[in-house]
Amino acid sequence: MDFTHFNDEGRAKMVDVTSKDITVRIASAYGKIEMKPQTSDAIKMGRIKKGDVLAVAQVAGIMAAKKTPSIIPMCHPLLITGIDLKFNLLTDAVEVISTVKLQGKTGVEMEALVAVSAACLTIYDMCKAIDRSMTIKNIYLLEKSGGKSGHFKRKTETASENIPR
Amino acid sequence: MDFTHFNDEGRAKMVDVTSKDITVRIASAYGKIEMKPQTSDAIKMGRIKKGDVLAVAQVAGIMAAKKTPSIIPMCHPLLITGIDLKFNLLTDAVEVISTVKLQGKTGVEMEALVAVSAACLTIYDMCKAIDRSMTIKNIYLLEKSGGKSGHFKRKTETASENIPR
Amino acid sequence: MDFTHFNDEGRAKMVDVTSKDITVRIASAYGKIEMKPQTSDAIKMGRIKKGDVLAVAQVAGIMAAKKTPSIIPMCHPLLITGIDLKFNLLTDAVEVISTVKLQGKTGVEMEALVAVSAACLTIYDMCKAIDRSMTIKNIYLLEKSGGKSGHFKRKTETASENIPR
Amino acid sequence: MDFTHFNDEGRAKMVDVTSKDITVRIASAYGKIEMKPQTSDAIKMGRIKKGDVLAVAQVAGIMAAKKTPSIIPMCHPLLITGIDLKFNLLTDAVEVISTVKLQGKTGVEMEALVAVSAACLTIYDMCKAIDRSMTIKNIYLLEKSGGKSGHFKRKTETASENIPR
Amino acid sequence: MDFTHFNDEGRAKMVDVTSKDITVRIASAYGKIEMKPQTSDAIKMGRIKKGDVLAVAQVAGIMAAKKTPSIIPMCHPLLITGIDLKFNLLTDAVEVISTVKLQGKTGVEMEALVAVSAACLTIYDMCKAIDRSMTIKNIYLLEKSGGKSGHFKRKTETASENIPR
Amino acid sequence: MDFTHFNDEGRAKMVDVTSKDITVRIASAYGKIEMKPQTSDAIKMGRIKKGDVLAVAQVAGIMAAKKTPSIIPMCHPLLITGIDLKFNLLTDAVEVISTVKLQGKTGVEMEALVAVSAACLTIYDMCKAIDRSMTIKNIYLLEKSGGKSGHFKRKTETASENIPR
Repeated sequence: MDFTHFNDEGRAKMVDVTSKDITVRIASAYGKIEMKPQTSDAIKMGRIKKGDVLAVAQVAGIMAAKKTPSIIPMCHPLLITGIDLKFNLLTDAVEVISTVKLQGKTGVEMEALVAVSAACLTIYDMCKAIDRSMTIKNIYLLEKSGGKSGHFKRKTETASENIPR
Repeated sequence: MDFTHFNDEGRAKMVDVTSKDITVRIASAYGKIEMKPQTSDAIKMGRIKKGDVLAVAQVAGIMAAKKTPSIIPMCHPLLITGIDLKFNLLTDAVEVISTVKLQGKTGVEMEALVAVSAACLTIYDMCKAIDRSMTIKNIYLLEKSGGKSGHFKRKTETASENIPR
Repeated sequence: MDFTHFNDEGRAKMVDVTSKDITVRIASAYGKIEMKPQTSDAIKMGRIKKGDVLAVAQVAGIMAAKKTPSIIPMCHPLLITGIDLKFNLLTDAVEVISTVKLQGKTGVEMEALVAVSAACLTIYDMCKAIDRSMTIKNIYLLEKSGGKSGHFKRKTETASENIPR
Repeated sequence: MDFTHFNDEGRAKMVDVTSKDITVRIASAYGKIEMKPQTSDAIKMGRIKKGDVLAVAQVAGIMAAKKTPSIIPMCHPLLITGIDLKFNLLTDAVEVISTVKLQGKTGVEMEALVAVSAACLTIYDMCKAIDRSMTIKNIYLLEKSGGKSGHFKRKTETASENIPR
Repeated sequence: MDFTHFNDEGRAKMVDVTSKDITVRIASAYGKIEMKPQTSDAIKMGRIKKGDVLAVAQVAGIMAAKKTPSIIPMCHPLLITGIDLKFNLLTDAVEVISTVKLQGKTGVEMEALVAVSAACLTIYDMCKAIDRSMTIKNIYLLEKSGGKSGHFKRKTETASENIPR
Repeated sequence: MDFTHFNDEGRAKMVDVTSKDITVRIASAYGKIEMKPQTSDAIKMGRIKKGDVLAVAQVAGIMAAKKTPSIIPMCHPLLITGIDLKFNLLTDAVEVISTVKLQGKTGVEMEALVAVSAACLTIYDMCKAIDRSMTIKNIYLLEKSGGKSGHFKRKTETASENIPR
C-alpha cells in the first residue's frame, strides 16, 4: 500500500485534484463524548433553563468545518455548500453527527470529521469545570458519497445514529 | 452543578479570569487512532523510506494548539510557551500524547486536547486513501497542573502512555 | 415567518445551497461614521500631507470581506471575484460604500456589510486618540442582484451615495 | 490635532506601547440593529420554540472580539481575559452591549466595538431571509477604564443600556 | 504604465475578475536561502538521524500558500487544486521550488511565491539558533501558464532548478 | 551543532521558553525587491497622483507580522507591542526595513522577517501586471536585542539602511 500524499522526495504534498470532476459530494461523521450522568443532566437542564451547551457546540462545529484547510495541512480549500450537526443526549454521553455537502473536486470527509471533533471539544470545554474526566471516543466517518472512490458506508453497531440531511 | 460559561441570560460568555494569578500551567492530553495493521505498517515503512506521516501530524498538532481560541468559542487567547507531541506506533493504532506549557492566568488543557485531536485527524487524512475505517478514540486529559483548581491526574489503564516533557 | 438557518432541533445550520445555480451576484452596502468636524478635517489634511486614514480603512474593508465566513458563523465560504470601496468625506462624517462581486451559489451581501463595518471600525481605530465619541451608524444593504431572490434596491434618503462599480 | 498611527513617512504603523504599564482595562460598547416588528417577534418566538438567533450572535461576537487584531490593521494582539454580551430585544430593534476585560498594555475598546458589530451582523445574517432592510446603527463606545488616557464614559440618551459586568 | 489595482480615488481594490474564464492555471516559484556550510550540513545530517528541517518547511509552504488571500491584501480567494515543493540542498544554501495548480479565474503566482517565502522563513526559524546570518535571496516567479496573459517563463541562470510537477 | 527545535524522536517541537525572563526585545529586518526602472517610476508617480503601492505593502507587513505564529509552524504566539516599516524607493528596487518590539519571553526576529517578506510580496502583487520579472532578494535580520542570546547586529554592505525606531 502506498500513500498518495507524498512526493518523490518523501515529503508531504497537497494531492493534485486539478483534473477531477466537479460533483456533488456528501460526508457524514460521528463522534461521542462520554461523561458522568450528572454532566449529561446539567446539559439537559441547561437547555431548558440556563444555557444551551449544545448550541455553542453546534456553532463551533460549523465554524471549524470551514477552517479545515488551515487545521489539516494537506486538505484542499473547498466551497462547502451546507453543514448541519445533530446531537443525541444520552444518559452518560453526547453523540454528535455531522453532515457536510459540497459541489467540488474532492470530498468533504475531513470537514465532517473536524466538525464533530470541534463540537465534542467544545462540549468538553463548556463542561470541564464540573467534569474533568470526560472522554471523546469513536470519531469516525459514517458515510461518504460522490467522487471517483464511490459510496462508502460504515457498518456501525450503535443504534442511535440518525444522520441529519 | 452549575456551568461557569453562561451569563444571567443563559448565553455563553468567556469566563472572566482578569483577577486570576499568572502561574506556570502544564497540561497533557492523550489520543488514539485505531487502524488496520497494514496501515500501521505503511506508516512505519514510510518513516524509513518514503514519507513521515507522523512528522506532518506533529506540525498539525502544534499549529492547531495555537489556533485553539479560534476553534473553541469560549477559550481565552493564551501565550503558549511550549508544545510537544509524542507518538507510539502500535500494531493497529497510533497513540498521541501532547504536552502544552504556559505562564498565564488560565490553563492549557483545551490546547493539549486540540493538539492530539488535530494530530489524529491529520493521520486520518494522510492514510484515508488506504484505510477509510480508522477510528479516533479515547481523547482525554491526562494531567494538568498549575492554577487554583490544583493538580489533576487521570487514572489511566493504558501502559503505553509516556508523557513528553 | 420562519428562519431558514435553523434545523429541526432548533439549532443553527449552514443553509444547504448545493443545488442552487452558479450566477453572477453583486451586493453593495453603505456605512457611515459620524465624528467631530475637527476629526474629519484631520483625515482630509492627512491625505494631503501625512497619512491616509482612508487608505488603511480601504485595505481593512477588503481583507475583512474575505474573512466573512470566519466572522459570521453561518456564512458560506465564497470565491469573491472583486471588491471595491468608496469613501465620501463629509464635514462631520465619513460615508463608506462597498461593492462585492461573485460568480457563485449564494449572495455576497454579508461580505459587503462586513467590508463597510471593518472600514468604519478602522477609521474609528485610527482616529480614536483625537475623538473617542465617534459613532458608526446606518450600516445597511444598498443593493443586491443575482440569484433566486431577485434584485433588491433599498429606498435611500441620502443623496451622497454613489456606488462604486 | 495629530494622528498617533502614522510614521514620519506618512504611513500607518502599530503604535509602540512597549513601555506602557500593564493595568486592568475594561471597555463596553453599544450597538443596535433596527428591524421590522415581525422580525423582532420572530426572534422572540425562536428563542422559545425553535432557534435562538441571539445565542449565535453571542458566540459570533465573542469569537470576533478575539480576531480583532486580524480585522483592524493597527490593533495590537491582546490577551483578553473576559468577554460578555447582553441583548435587549425591543419591539423593532435589538440592542447589543459588550464588555471586554484585559490586563495589559493597551485598551480593549476596539475589541468591544468589534464584538457588537459582529453580533449585529450575525443577527442580520440570520434574519435576512425575512427582512432585508434591517439597519445597524449607533455603534459606539459606552465606557472605558484603565490606562493612561483615563476613564471615559459616553453621555448616552438611551435608557435601555445596562452594561454586563 | 498603469496599475490595475487602484480605483478612481487612487485606493487599492481587489481587481474584478468576475467575467474571466475558468481555466487550468499553474505557477512555479523559486527561492533560495543562503547559509554557512555547517548549517547546510546540519540540515543534511538531521534528515538522516534527528529531525527533518525541510519536512517542516514543506508543510509550512503548503499551509501558507492556502493563506495567501489573508497575507497579500488584494489577492482573490482561490480553490487551489494542488501544491508541491522541492528542495535542493546545496553546500551553502537550500533552494526551494514550488508548484501550485488551480482551475479558476485568476492565476496562482502569488500562492507559489508565498509558498517558497514561507518555506525559506521556516528554514531560517528552525536553524537560527545555529546561524543567525542566513539570507533569503532570489525569490521570483519561474513559470506561469493558463489565463489571458499567456505563458510566462523566466530566463534563469541557475542550473539546479527542477520544477516539481 | 544541534537543533533546538527537535524532540528525542526527531520531530519538530515548539521550544519550551516557559522559564525565560520577560524582557524588552527588538528586532529589525531588511528586504529588497528589484524591478525595472519603469516599475519604480510607476510606484513613485502613483504615490503622487494615483495610488500608493507602499501604503498597501505597509499594512500587509504589519498584519502579516501579527500572523507569524500561524505562518511559521514552531513560532510562539507573542504580544507584539509595536511594528513599523520604512521604504526606500531606489531607481530599480524598493528596500523595506521593519522594526518589531515586544516585552516577552522570546524574540521577534521571525516577526520582523515575516513583515518585510509580506511587504515585498505585496509590492510584487500590486506591480506584477506591469513587471513579472521582479525579484525579492536579501531578506535578512539586521539587528536584534533583548533576551539571553544578546545583541546581534549584522555587518551590512548597503548604505541605505536606516532602521525605523
